Amino acid sequence: MGHEMSEKRPIVRYENGQLIEAEDEIVSEFPLTIYINGEEFATMVCTPTHLEELVIGFLASEGVILFKDDITDLKIDEDMGFARVTVNSKLDLAKQDHSKRFIGSCCGKSRQFYLQSDVRTAKTSMANIIVDAKDCIRLMKTMQENSLLFKNTGGVHNAALCNTEEVIVDRTDIGRHNALDKLYGHSLINKIPVRDKIIVFSGRISSEVLLKSAKIGVGVILSKSAPTDLAINLADDLNITAVGFIRGQTFNVYSHPERISKWDG
Amino acid sequence: MGHEMSEKRPIVRYENGQLIEAEDEIVSEFPLTIYINGEEFATMVCTPTHLEELVIGFLASEGVILFKDDITDLKIDEDMGFARVTVNSKLDLAKQDHSKRFIGSCCGKSRQFYLQSDVRTAKTSMANIIVDAKDCIRLMKTMQENSLLFKNTGGVHNAALCNTEEVIVDRTDIGRHNALDKLYGHSLINKIPVRDKIIVFSGRISSEVLLKSAKIGVGVILSKSAPTDLAINLADDLNITAVGFIRGQTFNVYSHPERISKWDG
Repeated sequence: MGHEMSEKRPIVRYENGQLIEAEDEIVSEFPLTIYINGEEFATMVCTPTHLEELVIGFLASEGVILFKDDITDLKIDEDMGFARVTVNSKLDLAKQDHSKRFIGSCCGKSRQFYLQSDVRTAKTSMANIIVDAKDCIRLMKTMQENSLLFKNTGGVHNAALCNTEEVIVDRTDIGRHNALDKLYGHSLINKIPVRDKIIVFSGRISSEVLLKSAKIGVGVILSKSAPTDLAINLADDLNITAVGFIRGQTFNVYSHPERISKWDG
Repeated sequence: MGHEMSEKRPIVRYENGQLIEAEDEIVSEFPLTIYINGEEFATMVCTPTHLEELVIGFLASEGVILFKDDITDLKIDEDMGFARVTVNSKLDLAKQDHSKRFIGSCCGKSRQFYLQSDVRTAKTSMANIIVDAKDCIRLMKTMQENSLLFKNTGGVHNAALCNTEEVIVDRTDIGRHNALDKLYGHSLINKIPVRDKIIVFSGRISSEVLLKSAKIGVGVILSKSAPTDLAINLADDLNITAVGFIRGQTFNVYSHPERISKWDG
């Protein structure tokens, strides 16, 4: 059974001082429970598209797998909202500490924050990509235009994997992290080289979003929203260029501005 | 040591076709690890205000406690980002299944979704409050005006507990759930009767937001954003009035519209 990304529902609308019967397009929120080697691992809610990418990207984000081939079997029951995953034996290690906090040796104001699984999987970027300022603006515009389909339902997040020329793949989800996990799954399944790619994202750059970008392996993240201080600290540390508030013909570069250039030609 | 909600940072700004050095106000994201009876329970990131309310509301949301008095000791180390909580012996039960999925007996399209801890704590609303349409618009406007302080940093969520007359308390956080947990903690600490109260919220009404409203115990939630289909199903089921897209002089009522009235006087 397939699931729609949205559906029409009857509502009561207040307009011109009157309460009237009307109809609205409502975005779907789909519960998906992931079992690993027969054991319940996590339940998430998501937009029910690209579920295989989502599961693979989520497990990679959580440090359960490193490559797609670490999964030996994956079955998704769309009717019940179950994903049954078989992974090789590395799991036991990952499961035990995947949500435990990692306390580094430095403390006070400059203390960075990673969960223990993040320490293992968030990579320092080696990207030597240079992005022109105009391309930052153009890629954000392209992603937003591609997602016009979902304008009516409101509130979905978009994430796109791009090179400096164009959008390679974009994904939508009601969950900000899910949209990024779908990109991650897509890049693992299709073995896309990510080092010199760019993530374009509709939501705020929180520490989790920044860490996910690091795990996916890109060197640049472009957002139309604001970053947090923790995300900027992590971006500084992991050598990632974080660009935010891309609106109209302006934006802010919050870390490693050496990757953003202005073409004077 | 106290923490600021935001701080100024040097950035590179792209404006009028030029990359220039500038400054921006950056919102803080503070990692807080909660230990219960000496054991690590969860790590969250939050805006570092009203941390005691946040911890108490979060533990109530998770089903670890029902009342504030279930906590016999609570110490917050703001320097390290630790909250050390001592609770009575009910914890063991709650901890074991708090994130396990609850699969109800009905399935197919009408299947509701709750985690097992939600089944225990999300209450069907008994509220017989009636809210005038104009009050819906006025309360949202008041909450938004109160939060103007954070306009510069972007992307924080606001939640307010209100009666039909006025905002009783409002809270801000970078995490949508945290803002609601702070309200929950506040109402538990101050033993505020919630049945006939209203929650006004800046973010989307997802299933988690709806369930949190049910746990807090209100009968009406007002949002400026969209609800999801799962949230509307839960609202139908739990007898909660969900109002969304409050913008200008219009809004949509997605469930139990009998609580929204239009004053014709």
